[in-house]
Amino acid sequence: MTKHILVIPGDGIGPEVTTWGKAVLEKIGQSYGHEFTFDEALMGHAGIEATGSPLPDETLEKAKASDAILFGAIGHIKYDNDPSAKVRPEQGLLKIRKELGLYANLRPIMLFDELLDASSLKPEILKGTDILFFRELTGDVYFGEKKRSEDRNTASDLMIYHRYEVERIATKAFEAARVRGKRLCSVDKANVLEASRLWREVVQELAKQYPDVETEHMFIDNAAMQLVKNPKKFDVVLTANLFGDILTDEASQIAGSMGMLASASIGDGTGFFEPIHGSAHDIAGQDKANPLASILSVALMLEISFGLKDEAKAITTAIDKVLKEGFRTGDIADANTDKSKILGTTAMGQKVLE
Amino acid sequence: MTKHILVIPGDGIGPEVTTWGKAVLEKIGQSYGHEFTFDEALMGHAGIEATGSPLPDETLEKAKASDAILFGAIGHIKYDNDPSAKVRPEQGLLKIRKELGLYANLRPIMLFDELLDASSLKPEILKGTDILFFRELTGDVYFGEKKRSEDRNTASDLMIYHRYEVERIATKAFEAARVRGKRLCSVDKANVLEASRLWREVVQELAKQYPDVETEHMFIDNAAMQLVKNPKKFDVVLTANLFGDILTDEASQIAGSMGMLASASIGDGTGFFEPIHGSAHDIAGQDKANPLASILSVALMLEISFGLKDEAKAITTAIDKVLKEGFRTGDIADANTDKSKILGTTAMGQKVLE
Ligand SMILES: CC(C)[C@H](C(=O)O)[C@@H](O)C(=O)O
Ligand SMILES: CC(C)[C@H](C(=O)O)[C@@H](O)C(=O)O
Repeated sequence: MTKHILVIPGDGIGPEVTTWGKAVLEKIGQSYGHEFTFDEALMGHAGIEATGSPLPDETLEKAKASDAILFGAIGHIKYDNDPSAKVRPEQGLLKIRKELGLYANLRPIMLFDELLDASSLKPEILKGTDILFFRELTGDVYFGEKKRSEDRNTASDLMIYHRYEVERIATKAFEAARVRGKRLCSVDKANVLEASRLWREVVQELAKQYPDVETEHMFIDNAAMQLVKNPKKFDVVLTANLFGDILTDEASQIAGSMGMLASASIGDGTGFFEPIHGSAHDIAGQDKANPLASILSVALMLEISFGLKDEAKAITTAIDKVLKEGFRTGDIADANTDKSKILGTTAMGQKVLE
Repeated sequence: MTKHILVIPGDGIGPEVTTWGKAVLEKIGQSYGHEFTFDEALMGHAGIEATGSPLPDETLEKAKASDAILFGAIGHIKYDNDPSAKVRPEQGLLKIRKELGLYANLRPIMLFDELLDASSLKPEILKGTDILFFRELTGDVYFGEKKRSEDRNTASDLMIYHRYEVERIATKAFEAARVRGKRLCSVDKANVLEASRLWREVVQELAKQYPDVETEHMFIDNAAMQLVKNPKKFDVVLTANLFGDILTDEASQIAGSMGMLASASIGDGTGFFEPIHGSAHDIAGQDKANPLASILSVALMLEISFGLKDEAKAITTAIDKVLKEGFRTGDIADANTDKSKILGTTAMGQKVLE
């Protein structure tokens, strides 16, 4: 198989973790006889510094021309503390999602048995949890019109959904539920929001075409609670953009750490793969970041974009093995971890490669 | 002291739990020599059934004429499954919040030591947690304009904030932080939302007037995660309406159950006190609901609206004692609970009264 992959390291710990995602891709290519070619491009703060734009035209062109994209992270503390900045790193990520039509963000919450104790939740609550989130990614209050009054005293964002937007992501979620646990939980706030009422209507209609899938509707506040109380009850979770952002970060605690979670954004064309963790500037450049989420993003790429299941499986098996041997990065270490087995980014990446 | 209290039982388990809140108020009145008079009114589904309106005019008049309001719960499954219903129970709650100017919703997350094991979080993660949420309650996407296109295929809600709305709730939160742990965490999504950028600007400005309070800004996705990962790090949490709805329900798992959490809504006039749990129709009328949140709402009323600290303390002490004796309602029982000490609503209410 011949595939061309665009690597966008981005900001903060992005570059150091994507290095290892890319290294694993190269290794898989060698071992399985695939020809993976690579290119690199800028986005976010890195893009602003070099070109003034968080998504340089060149990056978008390269993205469209690639078979899949491996992305690192985005964001910079400088903009976080300056609410009036006009140009912001995150705009790059939002724009590429929109331009590539990446409307479905898949976030599997998988639990490595070895990490049961790294979570703040009790092991008996966690054990057996296996959730696949479908987060809508190109609509909602993220992309609705933003306004600021002239006196700057009033600010607004439009939370808006169109029927087709809900339909296409819901269809993907139902299809996935059908080949998984056959349960789908759609999360909204239909008791208050009109956009949620449209969301619920569409999901209710679609559910009729999937009688084999048990469909449930849950309010976002309740879902945020149930996820902590009893995560095992969820199989496929379908949510809007904003609610999905919140719930999946919350759910990362189930997996022990955000450092373990990968995501796939798919839609009309090229797939986009990234860790769900952010740029983590506080530890950037210190060889402390956990590269496993980037490596797991690569596993998702192989499976979803290229249909290479065995190759994807080889990666998760390798990670499982490294964890079983007791190796940890700082974020997933706990009181029982042998101190000599706490590794930096490089050493952990190397272990998985081996 | 002479005070007039309006009781609004509402829907589902509302009536059975407020019965005990009211009983405790009467008992406190007798023991401490206060004259509490009561009236009752309808809201929500109960209001719709009787008058066609989720907030009958009479209820609003009585509310305005009272010194404090004890509310139960709102909502009915009938409307949840019918996204196109025009009249909905929740409209009653939203309207009374707006009409009474209840812009600040205080939700203390207090942890009874006896209930450490009832949570899905590890006891060592929980121990020492003490958070006070300030949720803005009369603005945001809850009250912004709602639209549905004529073909019904597009739906929207306006997420909107005005400077004065942020200022007044933030001021209350800073004042509270000053007399508590001196730490304030303001939660927003300023990397994406314009309304959040206004929010952050205002909080940053106000923070200058509170140099003794350590102010932090956190994105909502991160906050949803940190709350599970390390709840102890929070003291006062300040959030917008929607984010507060989500975070406080999530945080209820820290207290073991929603059945233990009370809230106070305050603002321009009469204070409004309610459990944070909902109408829970699945257990309504079965003598299963936990009345402690309603009783704790009364404690908040005594302290916040009437300035009666000793009386409020007497209530939490009584609850603490009942829990120490091993008594539990179903929601806060765990594997170690003596089965004979699992009580229904009535028996638990009675225990606290004694
Ligand atoms: C960086 C930010 C814009 C982004 C989002 O909110 O979508 C991030 O939190 C994510 O979840 O991918
Ligand atoms: C019933 C609903 C409208 C309400 C809200 O979302 O505010 C409830 O969830 C709450 O938190 O008080």
